[in-house]
Amino acid sequence: MSHKQKVRIGMIGYKFMGKAHSHAYRDLPFYFDLGIEPVLQTMVGRDKTSVKLASEKFGWLSYETDWRRLIEREDIDVIDIGTPNNTHVEIAIAAAEAGKHIICEKPLALNTQQALNMLKAVQKAGVIHMVSYNYRFVPAIQYAKKLIQDGMLGEIYHFRAQYLQDWIMDPGFPLVWRLRKDVCGSGSLGDLMAHSIDLARFLVGEIKEVTGMMETFIKKRPLGEMSGGLSASISGESFADVDVDDAVAAMARFENGAVGVFEATRFGKGNRNGNRLEINGSKGSIRWDMESMNTLQLYLEEDTPGMQGFRSINCTESVHPYGEAYWPAGHIIGYEHTFINLMHDFMKGILTNTNPNPNFEDGYRNQVILDAIEKSASAGKWMKIKY
Amino acid sequence: MSHKQKVRIGMIGYKFMGKAHSHAYRDLPFYFDLGIEPVLQTMVGRDKTSVKLASEKFGWLSYETDWRRLIEREDIDVIDIGTPNNTHVEIAIAAAEAGKHIICEKPLALNTQQALNMLKAVQKAGVIHMVSYNYRFVPAIQYAKKLIQDGMLGEIYHFRAQYLQDWIMDPGFPLVWRLRKDVCGSGSLGDLMAHSIDLARFLVGEIKEVTGMMETFIKKRPLGEMSGGLSASISGESFADVDVDDAVAAMARFENGAVGVFEATRFGKGNRNGNRLEINGSKGSIRWDMESMNTLQLYLEEDTPGMQGFRSINCTESVHPYGEAYWPAGHIIGYEHTFINLMHDFMKGILTNTNPNPNFEDGYRNQVILDAIEKSASAGKWMKIKY
Amino acid sequence: MSHKQKVRIGMIGYKFMGKAHSHAYRDLPFYFDLGIEPVLQTMVGRDKTSVKLASEKFGWLSYETDWRRLIEREDIDVIDIGTPNNTHVEIAIAAAEAGKHIICEKPLALNTQQALNMLKAVQKAGVIHMVSYNYRFVPAIQYAKKLIQDGMLGEIYHFRAQYLQDWIMDPGFPLVWRLRKDVCGSGSLGDLMAHSIDLARFLVGEIKEVTGMMETFIKKRPLGEMSGGLSASISGESFADVDVDDAVAAMARFENGAVGVFEATRFGKGNRNGNRLEINGSKGSIRWDMESMNTLQLYLEEDTPGMQGFRSINCTESVHPYGEAYWPAGHIIGYEHTFINLMHDFMKGILTNTNPNPNFEDGYRNQVILDAIEKSASAGKWMKIKY
Amino acid sequence: MSHKQKVRIGMIGYKFMGKAHSHAYRDLPFYFDLGIEPVLQTMVGRDKTSVKLASEKFGWLSYETDWRRLIEREDIDVIDIGTPNNTHVEIAIAAAEAGKHIICEKPLALNTQQALNMLKAVQKAGVIHMVSYNYRFVPAIQYAKKLIQDGMLGEIYHFRAQYLQDWIMDPGFPLVWRLRKDVCGSGSLGDLMAHSIDLARFLVGEIKEVTGMMETFIKKRPLGEMSGGLSASISGESFADVDVDDAVAAMARFENGAVGVFEATRFGKGNRNGNRLEINGSKGSIRWDMESMNTLQLYLEEDTPGMQGFRSINCTESVHPYGEAYWPAGHIIGYEHTFINLMHDFMKGILTNTNPNPNFEDGYRNQVILDAIEKSASAGKWMKIKY
Repeated sequence: MSHKQKVRIGMIGYKFMGKAHSHAYRDLPFYFDLGIEPVLQTMVGRDKTSVKLASEKFGWLSYETDWRRLIEREDIDVIDIGTPNNTHVEIAIAAAEAGKHIICEKPLALNTQQALNMLKAVQKAGVIHMVSYNYRFVPAIQYAKKLIQDGMLGEIYHFRAQYLQDWIMDPGFPLVWRLRKDVCGSGSLGDLMAHSIDLARFLVGEIKEVTGMMETFIKKRPLGEMSGGLSASISGESFADVDVDDAVAAMARFENGAVGVFEATRFGKGNRNGNRLEINGSKGSIRWDMESMNTLQLYLEEDTPGMQGFRSINCTESVHPYGEAYWPAGHIIGYEHTFINLMHDFMKGILTNTNPNPNFEDGYRNQVILDAIEKSASAGKWMKIKY
Repeated sequence: MSHKQKVRIGMIGYKFMGKAHSHAYRDLPFYFDLGIEPVLQTMVGRDKTSVKLASEKFGWLSYETDWRRLIEREDIDVIDIGTPNNTHVEIAIAAAEAGKHIICEKPLALNTQQALNMLKAVQKAGVIHMVSYNYRFVPAIQYAKKLIQDGMLGEIYHFRAQYLQDWIMDPGFPLVWRLRKDVCGSGSLGDLMAHSIDLARFLVGEIKEVTGMMETFIKKRPLGEMSGGLSASISGESFADVDVDDAVAAMARFENGAVGVFEATRFGKGNRNGNRLEINGSKGSIRWDMESMNTLQLYLEEDTPGMQGFRSINCTESVHPYGEAYWPAGHIIGYEHTFINLMHDFMKGILTNTNPNPNFEDGYRNQVILDAIEKSASAGKWMKIKY
Repeated sequence: MSHKQKVRIGMIGYKFMGKAHSHAYRDLPFYFDLGIEPVLQTMVGRDKTSVKLASEKFGWLSYETDWRRLIEREDIDVIDIGTPNNTHVEIAIAAAEAGKHIICEKPLALNTQQALNMLKAVQKAGVIHMVSYNYRFVPAIQYAKKLIQDGMLGEIYHFRAQYLQDWIMDPGFPLVWRLRKDVCGSGSLGDLMAHSIDLARFLVGEIKEVTGMMETFIKKRPLGEMSGGLSASISGESFADVDVDDAVAAMARFENGAVGVFEATRFGKGNRNGNRLEINGSKGSIRWDMESMNTLQLYLEEDTPGMQGFRSINCTESVHPYGEAYWPAGHIIGYEHTFINLMHDFMKGILTNTNPNPNFEDGYRNQVILDAIEKSASAGKWMKIKY
Repeated sequence: MSHKQKVRIGMIGYKFMGKAHSHAYRDLPFYFDLGIEPVLQTMVGRDKTSVKLASEKFGWLSYETDWRRLIEREDIDVIDIGTPNNTHVEIAIAAAEAGKHIICEKPLALNTQQALNMLKAVQKAGVIHMVSYNYRFVPAIQYAKKLIQDGMLGEIYHFRAQYLQDWIMDPGFPLVWRLRKDVCGSGSLGDLMAHSIDLARFLVGEIKEVTGMMETFIKKRPLGEMSGGLSASISGESFADVDVDDAVAAMARFENGAVGVFEATRFGKGNRNGNRLEINGSKGSIRWDMESMNTLQLYLEEDTPGMQGFRSINCTESVHPYGEAYWPAGHIIGYEHTFINLMHDFMKGILTNTNPNPNFEDGYRNQVILDAIEKSASAGKWMKIKY
């Protein structure tokens, strides 16, 4: 493998996304012949014991406890930011100034201004940048994009998406960082609906205006981070206000005339990761649900009358996006492969010195929309989207 | 059958709903032992040839061409109103004044004022009244109601409903009465979303405030009613503006704290009659789709961890609402049975002199919400619901 | 309606099938313009109180307690046989000799010899005859037949069918007539698999040879018919041997080279009426399941690579068989409509003096196959099918 | 990672299974903390160029072209056999004699005698042995096993399985090794139904007797291996007879009284990898389909009447087998994870010096059943299973 260009990764963060990204770097050369080889150089975390353990398990060559030291190092080509949202801006700008390529978890920042600053920094530095909206990289979604681009659905009239989870419904579930506005900016909005907005922009186009509604069903929660997984609850603790949304809904108008309806919640009992969308056009429709992510439902008006109906396409054929890399048709892939495909595009961007999609421009625009939804929800009226 | 009380029906209208109601009256005594027997006394339509034909095919004893004459007749106990929406108010008030029991198609009227007048008229007259929101009478929906009432879903957090059709997507489809505001009041709003609103009120409770969005994708259409079915298109005609909505969306807050997201469209390609809903509560969730109407999806938090998942309940067991009347478990019923069940409740109401649900009060409240959605869509802000 | 030819029905049997047939006769003229009107002349049952009650509820003009008297009557055109299987042969032959048209419930008889005698009798008498394999009359099945005839599936390689029920799994469920060989001939074989065999012959063609396996899981059951429904169990009774099959499986070869796999059981816990089939051909495949009977799953090889997948066709469009008669597309029909469609073909047969399908020839051939499966199961080897 | 026991793998074969196993060894320590680390020591293939390329892509430290040399080497702890079936016996016996642990692809051998010799060899050598029936390692299947063991389904009455593929339906598809009896022993029988038999033995228990039916739809095919994928066809070639089965079906009786129906085919148009099963017991049922492999359908009799139905369980919770190792609930895994889980059990077997399941005993018993099905198919009668 000596002929491959080595790209040395420095990753900040080592939990859920740290695991997903680490795995993707490891598996990438196994599945794709890219002429590039990611090297798991250094993993960074503040807690030395934890990051040491994670770095060993996930196969990193070394670890650090200070992200600033990482950025100063010359043996690092890429900074991978998987930390809580409130830290993105500082790390990303420093990394850009140090000339590192950057991949950043979503949402890009706490707010529009931060995102804009980050965008300007990477543009000024001329580094490759990407934001990790991984659901774009489901083959069924990429194939949907191709179908829409090829005009198979005709003019798009409707986009509707729901992203439903249920992991914080227990009132005893504590005020983890994902429930604190100062750390994450918003709740289900930035965590879940941000994905749907990215898919909407990817598949349908730019959004012109929005109006939103936000709700926090459980107003107070016990303090303290979870230990040992997300499913337990804590009792006998002091309580604090929840200042992010448990649920959010939004209506939107797209520039091309389509209308959109979005909903995200962490109170959708029974929906573990119910990320679904449907698009209706003048000539056809698609439906997709992350819980059976390999399947794209496709309806085509051109089908013979009597034989019209939604087809269940198992997007694992060699003709499907990224399909050749994996297994024979019908042998499904899973959640982690969205990150392998995403890293494929990121590494290819580095190799060819071309920004992949979605990049910080997309991250910024997404943030503009998130902020508009939040403002409209509090103002009770529609907000124009201005980039 | 001579021991049964005969209830003599006079039906105004003989097309889609005329057929559905006629069939329901005929089949009712076959399936239910109610101690009542609807008599298909007279069918009314303006076109003599057509109404004669329809009345014979559907088994009516006679026909009339003037609905006023029908209302004057003493041999009529019930007026069944299945005409276009703009005629409901006049007929219903006249019928009430004549002391007839009334069942009226939905939406009840063109606007809140009409609906209120109708409600006052039936209340004053002391007649039995009902509005034909037939989807309440799907056994799966009635069973969902029971589960919610029994507390199986706990506190309700979310109601989401989509009602998607695709029958007017051809730009050559003409400006039939369902596309004219003066005749029907609104488009997908009153035709489709009205059903979802009725289901929301039935299953979750009263709505407190709403904000809506409406869209007309095809702005002009050829004049002229369809001949020979709804699927053909007309060409070479003069065109006129479409003044009702092709699609509508709304967000809502319920009095009990739940949030609602509604969407209805006639531009949902591939969805022939896609009437779906999902409700999430603190202890469980349900999902339902009219295209497989016998199935209720139920998730219960109380299920053993590891064995949790949405159950597909085929609501055809004898323990299910109306289940005993039909066939053995697993032998499904269809669209028309919603009307048989509805007529069961209507006739029982007459027999026991008790207003069934949904009645004109429900029709009026529904209309208030429809009007609020329309106003909020044009004002771009939330509207309080005041009955 | 005076211009329509009246066909006077005499029905023997008044339980499950009596209800289904009665309803079909009543609804037939409502949905179809056939130029014929079935008259519910007389219903026959041995128990006077019960048959009187059923005849009134189901809308019959009169009742009898002796089927021989019915057959002698001149005001009867059709004999409808819905009694237990062991009575079919005597009634049918007597009815044929009296010149009555005959529709008989399935399976046609207790064995091949009886079925052959019945076939000869109707042929000799020149009356119209039909056997009530109602699942042929699901629109999705009729449409599948058309697709196969049109060559859309190419050469047929595979037919597989399961018919799974679960209503006798309680060991306390008594030895009702459907569990006694002298009354019904066989268990799940004649009750359930007979339907799958009929569908196989209809859709694929004649069967050349079979081998079967039969099993009775509960060897003894309490004596006594059920009172008050099928779901209760009886205790403290004397027990007797069950001499019919609880479950049966069979492998088959068709004359056209296709292979078939059949399975039927009354021990398929959770399957209330799980009547399913799949057919694979060189150019396409279909799947169908009675529990969502309106849906035909269709796979076509000719679809563009990448867009291939099973389509869910809701066979309620006007282009689908019998579709025009009912409701707009997407408004589903149910179990009872299979009988309305069947009676449509039967009445049309009478009107045009042409035998409909399936008729006694089909009933006889089905019986030959049932007997071959039973013999092969006891001999442990393949049996040729010889008509 | 220096504290982990290193297990040095020598893999023979580098195509579909070589890729799947290589990936599993690589990912194993990423997901599981086993105290063991597989080292991808050497990959073997006859064609030097190809094996070099594959070994580099899949991350092997070296390659060989002669499997005998591999077995002689002292730096190899495990022999992984992923070659065509006719080579298994010689390699496995030599590896056992050399004291290597062995994992062998399925089916274990060409016939019962070979399999027995292999089993004796590993038992004599005292090495750890496993056969790669990977579908056992789908979490939903492992969970089904647990449910059955816990008695949740009660007494088992029915096992039915279909394994349907469609990749050789083009008559121009050439006579690859999987279509040659001398190389693979049988066609769909050993390739596909062998998996269903393994699942049946795992979930239900031992089989007592079987009867089979085999069919070859395309009798002659062009000679020559495929180049560049499996989807193209070859023309203008000389033809030879196909001597293995395109399709096979079997009926079976289990020792515990359950009955089984099996079907496998490569002519199931539209089914890419349709590996499905259903089990019915006295207290519940399960359904599973590999194309949505994470979902287990579960029906429980103990559910409240009215709320009974098949549940769709997404077996990705931490309480599900292997669930803790991967992603949060609802984030699905795919085909390749079956091999990671399998290697987990294999490595744990080596670590604890305990044979995992399924091992060569299972491989042998499976082979006995395969041979019995083949013999019964040609004899046209039932065969007893004797181990």
